[in-house]
Amino acid sequence: MFNKVLVANRGEIAIRIMRACKELGVSTVAVYSDADSNALFTKYADEAYAIGPPPASRSYLNIDAILEVAEKSGAEGIHPGYGFLSENSKFAEACEKAGINFIGPPSKVIEQMGSKIAARSTMEKAGVPVVPGSGEPIEDIDVALEIADSIGYPVMVKASAGGGGIGMKVVKSRENFKAAVSAIQSVARSTFGDPTVFVEKYLPEPRHIEFQILADKYGNTVYVSDRECSIQRRHQKLIEEAPSPVMTPEFREEMGSAAVKAAKTIDYENAGTVEFLYSQGDFYFLEVNTRLQVEHTITELVTGIDLAKDQLHIACGEELPYKQEDININGWAIECRINAEDPLNDFAPSPGKIRRYRSAGGPGVRVDSGVHVGYTISPYYDSMISKLSVWGRDRNEAISRMQRALYEYVVVGVTTNLPFHRAVLSNDAFKKGELTTHFIEDNNILDEVRKIVDADSRASRTLASALDNYNPKVAAVAAAVKSYMESTQALDQRKTK
Amino acid sequence: MFNKVLVANRGEIAIRIMRACKELGVSTVAVYSDADSNALFTKYADEAYAIGPPPASRSYLNIDAILEVAEKSGAEGIHPGYGFLSENSKFAEACEKAGINFIGPPSKVIEQMGSKIAARSTMEKAGVPVVPGSGEPIEDIDVALEIADSIGYPVMVKASAGGGGIGMKVVKSRENFKAAVSAIQSVARSTFGDPTVFVEKYLPEPRHIEFQILADKYGNTVYVSDRECSIQRRHQKLIEEAPSPVMTPEFREEMGSAAVKAAKTIDYENAGTVEFLYSQGDFYFLEVNTRLQVEHTITELVTGIDLAKDQLHIACGEELPYKQEDININGWAIECRINAEDPLNDFAPSPGKIRRYRSAGGPGVRVDSGVHVGYTISPYYDSMISKLSVWGRDRNEAISRMQRALYEYVVVGVTTNLPFHRAVLSNDAFKKGELTTHFIEDNNILDEVRKIVDADSRASRTLASALDNYNPKVAAVAAAVKSYMESTQALDQRKTK
Repeated sequence: MFNKVLVANRGEIAIRIMRACKELGVSTVAVYSDADSNALFTKYADEAYAIGPPPASRSYLNIDAILEVAEKSGAEGIHPGYGFLSENSKFAEACEKAGINFIGPPSKVIEQMGSKIAARSTMEKAGVPVVPGSGEPIEDIDVALEIADSIGYPVMVKASAGGGGIGMKVVKSRENFKAAVSAIQSVARSTFGDPTVFVEKYLPEPRHIEFQILADKYGNTVYVSDRECSIQRRHQKLIEEAPSPVMTPEFREEMGSAAVKAAKTIDYENAGTVEFLYSQGDFYFLEVNTRLQVEHTITELVTGIDLAKDQLHIACGEELPYKQEDININGWAIECRINAEDPLNDFAPSPGKIRRYRSAGGPGVRVDSGVHVGYTISPYYDSMISKLSVWGRDRNEAISRMQRALYEYVVVGVTTNLPFHRAVLSNDAFKKGELTTHFIEDNNILDEVRKIVDADSRASRTLASALDNYNPKVAAVAAAVKSYMESTQALDQRKTK
Repeated sequence: MFNKVLVANRGEIAIRIMRACKELGVSTVAVYSDADSNALFTKYADEAYAIGPPPASRSYLNIDAILEVAEKSGAEGIHPGYGFLSENSKFAEACEKAGINFIGPPSKVIEQMGSKIAARSTMEKAGVPVVPGSGEPIEDIDVALEIADSIGYPVMVKASAGGGGIGMKVVKSRENFKAAVSAIQSVARSTFGDPTVFVEKYLPEPRHIEFQILADKYGNTVYVSDRECSIQRRHQKLIEEAPSPVMTPEFREEMGSAAVKAAKTIDYENAGTVEFLYSQGDFYFLEVNTRLQVEHTITELVTGIDLAKDQLHIACGEELPYKQEDININGWAIECRINAEDPLNDFAPSPGKIRRYRSAGGPGVRVDSGVHVGYTISPYYDSMISKLSVWGRDRNEAISRMQRALYEYVVVGVTTNLPFHRAVLSNDAFKKGELTTHFIEDNNILDEVRKIVDADSRASRTLASALDNYNPKVAAVAAAVKSYMESTQALDQRKTK
């Protein structure tokens, strides 16, 4: 095992990795930007070094500065966390050249999976299912028609340069195809200056389902569990669960084996995630994330495996301690990403100082966080406050436990997406496990969020009026107001329900 | 299921029970003493009522006041938690008479187990092993000798009225017996005014091992897992683990079956614990705790069963949802009771205000607590700050995780037993699972605690001197001091290791 590891990241994931190190008796080195000099992760580490000012380009993405600290401190390995340099093959390569153990896959694997088009082509050749379609952007409308015919209708036409729902169209039959492509192309040309399009099979009710994999340096590769991450806003996951509600043991074996095949095809090493789109019983390769993911916590909860510790073991050249049949799924886990963001303002980040803070606790609750009372969420970095994960014996228990944990969670000082999570967790479609990547829109979740936020502020107004008319002789009112003033935000929310 | 439940308790256990209620959609009623009017559990509840001033005799033990609130609020059930009225058969009986569901066993069962002597005799008749001995106090030295002969030497002679190690003697052979009894009797007569003694088999290396049981109203009774609670001070548990390091599947079945037999003998209902003494491969009935125990958390961690929720299900007349073979033990769990007490001052309580507080988190960590920053630990009640429980795949992982969690735990403002826990968790005998109820004395744990506390205060002095000689021009010193001042107690502890 390593003697000392540098964590090239910040916030909760830096602490998550240092927790793994601590349990293995490995010393830790933090690097931090000037904006993070008082952050919890710098205090958690055994040593901490400043590497530059924000933004990230001048510190957390500064490969030279990080390698210099690694050398100076004598760190034998570098864990990149997620985001920042974690999927930067040049960083992995620089570590390799400097003789420092990059805790992740080899640089060439990261590079290979860096291009979505190349990754798709690699997987298609290896026999891993991909979404039937052009694979590469096409300009010629007759070529597009040929591909659409071979896929079968309905098909999806997407502008290559598009995004955020702009330049996408479902075409239901051959007759409408050419007109639709022309329309998309002309929109794409005028909007993005690029008329090329992708043609793909249209997938109704798509779900995001991914498989955690672990691979050692000796070709032993296992899938650790599936996760469903369909609840997203702007392609960013907000709520994840393990396992997926659509999973059966047989189907898990089928998808899991495809994930292992994908990993073996590229000689994958260390922890990674193979992401798939799922639609009506079929699944299609999406991409490989060559790092530990935010939502790894729920896999840990249902399998008992410590993925961060296993990353260290694997990087040190140890063999995987389990075979596929040793890995069982026990119960159900859900994660809510608690962010400082305003769901009613297009999920815009709301940085600021946390004035009061209390996280949930008790049975089945896991909290991963890097914040505390008095901590200021910086505008320079992502707005995550914490990852709230729960475990239950079954999905229903996990849901009621998450609702209970959300009730307990108190963050005062910044706008959070707690009302969003409350809205989703009490939604009937969610409770039935009817998830798609369009879940938020399809279920008018933001309307529910608005009702929750409105009820909260009504409660505040009621209190303000009670205070205006405060009569100290009426003990009951006095007690109620006093109790209200001292109560938590969570309590306020409850009282209005 | 109940619509509304009153929790006749305070602190973390009140919150634990309300968490169970919340997950089941049951409304909660808190009752509180004047000393607790701002406590977290009163805010967590849907309704909260004052029931009198401290001490407990005037509030938490005031049966009439509690029943009055139950009636006024329309609570259908009362959960007594642990301590206070939880094992008071008169309270259970009063609930029964008032038509309120007492969430625990029937009053007659509580009463039956209230006398240790009667309980022992009941269990002996039922064929549950008890420590061979007199069972009842004896005055006549010849009767005592007869019993000692029948047990076989060595035997233990204990003054009936004794306690805290006073009036106890191990007698190794028949020749020494009469003289030893006379000596004990004369000490007992002069100290306690009562010369009667018990004669019992002497048990070397005794361990406290207990079995959680669950029993519904239809005679279905299961054992849920064993717990070892040998690490005690003054007969109060401080560290518990599940399972016990001495357990094998066969032995668990044997002891567990004895626990179930004990429960069935007295027509037990709801959750309970059958406590045993274990010595060199044999086990002996000690007592039945007719309530949920502090350390139930570790059983929940290794079995996934929510004992508090099951208590509510059982009290409502539901059948147990599992049979014995459905209950499996997964991994290992340890609990440390974090108390405001001074291990170096005979574990005397140290009430006071919590100025800084941060609990542990991340993988495998569960925290049950009723405190927060600014909370004042009252001299009126027990000094528990929180229950820190961890889960690991095996005992070694659970130990390293607990060490990591103790490193993270920050409590400033009151003296805590955190150094005690750190000393035990790093002790070699503990790591090997070599536990006895004399563990603290046998392993000179308090010497280790003293070293840890001394190192902590050395670090404080070093800082004070650094501050005295503070040179603002030396940036490195300035940064170090600043970082120190902002750092956590846990950090301080780490730096001195």
